[in-house]
Amino acid sequence: MKKIFLISTLLALTSARILAQQSLMPDRNTIISPEIHDDHSVTFRLFAPQAKEVRLVSDCLPEGKNFEDLQKDESGLWSCTVNKLNPELYGYTFSVDGVKVIDPNNVYFIRDVANVFNIFLIDGERADLYKVNDIPHGSLTKIWYQSPTLNKERRMTIYTPPGYESSKQNYPVLYLLHGMGGDENAWTELGRASQILDNLIARGAAKPMIVVMPNGHVIIDAAPGETADGFYKPNTFRLRGGFAGEMEKSFPDIIQFVEKNYRVKADKAHRAIAGLSMGGLHSIAISANYPNTFDYIGLFSAATPQENEKIEVYHNLDQKFKLQKENGYQLYWIGMGKTDFLYQNGTLFRNKLDEIDMKYTYYESQGGHTWRNWRIYLSEFAPLLFKEKESEK
Amino acid sequence: MKKIFLISTLLALTSARILAQQSLMPDRNTIISPEIHDDHSVTFRLFAPQAKEVRLVSDCLPEGKNFEDLQKDESGLWSCTVNKLNPELYGYTFSVDGVKVIDPNNVYFIRDVANVFNIFLIDGERADLYKVNDIPHGSLTKIWYQSPTLNKERRMTIYTPPGYESSKQNYPVLYLLHGMGGDENAWTELGRASQILDNLIARGAAKPMIVVMPNGHVIIDAAPGETADGFYKPNTFRLRGGFAGEMEKSFPDIIQFVEKNYRVKADKAHRAIAGLSMGGLHSIAISANYPNTFDYIGLFSAATPQENEKIEVYHNLDQKFKLQKENGYQLYWIGMGKTDFLYQNGTLFRNKLDEIDMKYTYYESQGGHTWRNWRIYLSEFAPLLFKEKESEK
Repeated sequence: MKKIFLISTLLALTSARILAQQSLMPDRNTIISPEIHDDHSVTFRLFAPQAKEVRLVSDCLPEGKNFEDLQKDESGLWSCTVNKLNPELYGYTFSVDGVKVIDPNNVYFIRDVANVFNIFLIDGERADLYKVNDIPHGSLTKIWYQSPTLNKERRMTIYTPPGYESSKQNYPVLYLLHGMGGDENAWTELGRASQILDNLIARGAAKPMIVVMPNGHVIIDAAPGETADGFYKPNTFRLRGGFAGEMEKSFPDIIQFVEKNYRVKADKAHRAIAGLSMGGLHSIAISANYPNTFDYIGLFSAATPQENEKIEVYHNLDQKFKLQKENGYQLYWIGMGKTDFLYQNGTLFRNKLDEIDMKYTYYESQGGHTWRNWRIYLSEFAPLLFKEKESEK
Repeated sequence: MKKIFLISTLLALTSARILAQQSLMPDRNTIISPEIHDDHSVTFRLFAPQAKEVRLVSDCLPEGKNFEDLQKDESGLWSCTVNKLNPELYGYTFSVDGVKVIDPNNVYFIRDVANVFNIFLIDGERADLYKVNDIPHGSLTKIWYQSPTLNKERRMTIYTPPGYESSKQNYPVLYLLHGMGGDENAWTELGRASQILDNLIARGAAKPMIVVMPNGHVIIDAAPGETADGFYKPNTFRLRGGFAGEMEKSFPDIIQFVEKNYRVKADKAHRAIAGLSMGGLHSIAISANYPNTFDYIGLFSAATPQENEKIEVYHNLDQKFKLQKENGYQLYWIGMGKTDFLYQNGTLFRNKLDEIDMKYTYYESQGGHTWRNWRIYLSEFAPLLFKEKESEK
């Protein structure tokens, strides 16, 4: 009896503590938002009796529609329902009388540079790869490595596949790089990399592999809030250094750290590198500057390099590509969205590869420079990696 | 030149993409909030020209003060300044015309059950332990383990100290348990466990140790959003199972997994267990039911067990405590806040220990049942662990 009393007290306390911070929102805990209906329509709700205008801002709205107005009922609860949505991971926020409001009834949100937004998932089709399913899960580690080239410690994220801890086998490695606005958290938070790999591996569609996600901005050591810089406001303008060749130059430090500390197959046939946007540029340059290192290269909406004799990794590019071609590789994969602002750059780059007869696989999708596309590209690219050659079977 | 152009385009795009989602907040990117001044006063700001009332809700306000009104200037920017604050990690949200608003200019926030709030840190004194400092950092892993007792896979968080990867030595282990509202993410997110351990170890104030943070609710496998249940709304009422003895019963599965997969000193002298609230109850029961397993026990604002013959781990408690006492231990540490709602329970429990002459160390702090206290208790407790005995030197 005393024990039951104690539990009730704990429950009451927990609720009281929450409500104490939200005493102005009495109805909050009974509100469900977003509510995903069986037909994949979605209802959004916000309790805001004093507001004059509440809007939904979301990439779940039809293209070209910037917002959807919510309607207020007599109790002060605003709501709107969006019609049947395709399977996808969507983002949204509310705008209440002009102020951006994270949905207080949805605790799932992501940060992209300085922009925080709620998320929800409509499952089915490819989006099932983005879900946590009831299957074996890999491990995800935030780890600091020493970079002798940059003379500092830096943070990265490493995914090891299910069974890594209990097995004694060695694994192939995919180095997966983010874009200009990203950091070592981007691929797992915005890109759902753990879920995509867990699901592909469970289906037998991809080989078990280690995925290494470093921080591509050499002027910072880690994601915002994870360094001695404290809780500063993220800003892409301080990150121009990502295009100065330093990430590429210091990349061997990362490979050496991984190959020393993880059970990996440390050869070209078992190394892949892929990246989005700026990380695509890095992938091009790293694989060309260390031309016998990667058998698999993936470019997702990639920025493309320009010859620059002042930056070693961007110097003599034509020669480097030719050498890379002569040394051989298994896959040079290029993904691009039809409306990507880098589309034309991508076409010029492919023309250049055509000129020197450097083979590649090209995948063109709808849409532009978005995480929606980068999740698609990862789920297309990963299954193509580390196919055993006849001689190894 | 082309390269410079490309960088500018990328920058413009990134900004455009952010602004596209926040087109109703044109001044957002120039606003700093919170701004921490040299004298440790803090200014909060929110751009909300149409709002009628903006309030700050925060634990940085004087005790008994539930909110502070912000004042509006002619441009629609609301602000308030809170006087010189003591070093601490603080939480806050805004209330805009009655709607809870996460500060859109601060990307640092934490979830506690279903309550999301921004954070900021005033450094100095003990709060320096909560900062990321320019020192070696341990690794943090989210890992799934098989529990044969519960017949399912479950998720936990494991901290390994700086140097773990490169050394060959074995380490002692602290098992660190959360409370009723928590999960395997709570101690690192709300409790700043990684930062506290990194800092204590760097100062030489604590031994390098592994910290294992499992999920204490056996009816769920992992934190909200990390299971096949999807993105549901967290609610403590579904978690009553935490008091049914199942966590304690299945705890050997966790120890076995850790001792099989990590380089640990697998003996009583190098095992500690500590927990807050419900996790304190678990720590009492686990250390008493496996009485020759832990030399160090920490109870942080602990719930306390009641004799219950229907639940094996809560049966014959007096005998179990006596056996634990006879077998011996190095430290039985109890931390409690003066205004904690469990204060009286704690006093009764200490009386019980006194009756059987079971030694403990008692630490009483200001305040109540809060993460502020639990961070203090961890930073007091960790330095006391794994002291070498004379015979081992």
